[in-house]
Amino acid sequence: MKVAVVGATGMVGTVMLKVLEERNLPITELIPVASARSAGKKLTYKGKEYTVVTLEKAVTMNPAIALFSAGGDTSIEWAPKFAEAGATVIDNSSAWRMDPTKKLVVPEINGDVLTADDKIIANPNCSTIQLVMALAPLHKKYNMKRVVISTYQSVSGTGVKAVQQLDNEESGIDGEMAYPHKIGRNALPHCDVFLENGYTKEEMKLVKEPKKILGDTSFSITATAVRIPTAGGHSEAVNVQFENDFELANV
Amino acid sequence: MKVAVVGATGMVGTVMLKVLEERNLPITELIPVASARSAGKKLTYKGKEYTVVTLEKAVTMNPAIALFSAGGDTSIEWAPKFAEAGATVIDNSSAWRMDPTKKLVVPEINGDVLTADDKIIANPNCSTIQLVMALAPLHKKYNMKRVVISTYQSVSGTGVKAVQQLDNEESGIDGEMAYPHKIGRNALPHCDVFLENGYTKEEMKLVKEPKKILGDTSFSITATAVRIPTAGGHSEAVNVQFENDFELANV
Repeated sequence: MKVAVVGATGMVGTVMLKVLEERNLPITELIPVASARSAGKKLTYKGKEYTVVTLEKAVTMNPAIALFSAGGDTSIEWAPKFAEAGATVIDNSSAWRMDPTKKLVVPEINGDVLTADDKIIANPNCSTIQLVMALAPLHKKYNMKRVVISTYQSVSGTGVKAVQQLDNEESGIDGEMAYPHKIGRNALPHCDVFLENGYTKEEMKLVKEPKKILGDTSFSITATAVRIPTAGGHSEAVNVQFENDFELANV
Repeated sequence: MKVAVVGATGMVGTVMLKVLEERNLPITELIPVASARSAGKKLTYKGKEYTVVTLEKAVTMNPAIALFSAGGDTSIEWAPKFAEAGATVIDNSSAWRMDPTKKLVVPEINGDVLTADDKIIANPNCSTIQLVMALAPLHKKYNMKRVVISTYQSVSGTGVKAVQQLDNEESGIDGEMAYPHKIGRNALPHCDVFLENGYTKEEMKLVKEPKKILGDTSFSITATAVRIPTAGGHSEAVNVQFENDFELANV
């Protein structure tokens, strides 16, 4: 099994490689892929050295699976090219999630919707995944009526520049800003851009994605997404009201 | 007007003195009060030096007003003694808030309930105050049905030891712990102790206090209280459903 990791030198790509190593997938050849700027760099996977290649090169190498974690624009342009070349693309960006022709999958919940024809498979927002893992069994048993979500999201979710900003602020160094405001000792209710309806894009992901994954639009969701000065994992406070007016807080 | 500030050397007491200075209240004599440990210390108010006295001493000095910010146990024991001595006590602790014989007041909302007979007046939890300031006018106009609150509370709310823990952790110093866990780059959904119903005491304050202040128990409240590594101000994500099923998120 030939596996390409697109965005292999990024923060998420690096963890993807680590997890692939741990899971011991039967990978016969790893294809680490990054932008032209990072191509040529070396990285080690299972004790073997690999050279990072460009997207143009990787698509000609016929990977069976391509794990994309390089941002929405890269996915929009390149996922179809990899799919045409025969790869099954698993995309970490928001590019394809709400596309009605693409499946949005959390394997434990709706892995069964996949068929061999699905060549571009979308992966939900990180806050959505942990949310639906808790909601799916509750909804199945009790039928949710409404869900109110507040997130406590770490700066690592924004990327390496944001972690650097927090590091700098904690060390009293005047460095580059990834956010429009100080993030150290602050809470920014502003993840991704604001939309016309007054919610941020991140909040609307939490509203839309769970309904697609659970295959059900009969319940309501609202969300407040907040960035806090942590690194390495999001938390959420979730309140769920069920059809019989039974309620669960702090899910 | 003789004004005693009980807990004058603490974190909140220090800010109280600063605010009293700014507000330019007609204070003829300031009586800074603290534990025996801090008695004898000097502090400056409006350019004049004052000596910190004990509770035993202060109660004999006949203050007209006593602002208490020295924890619940001190308030339980000493607020009645100051009241008996003729002072009007305004108490910042949780000691008297839910006592049916005491008023729980946010001046902008229910200051009108006070009479000259109220000798111990309770001040709500810090998260409650900012919450009811937003909820009161909304409730008056639209009738709230339910409120779902998630807090983002700063370590300064816990006190000076907690701020020290955060300072230490950010500087890589191994110091005393105010929380059972690391608070730097962490989020602790654990403010005050857990109660038998699974909520924390802090969460139940947010459930009970607004109903008392608004003088109305016709609506439901639920809360998740979370401590985050900020210092100097709490934030809240609030979702409100009104009787006509109109809804407001991110209040």
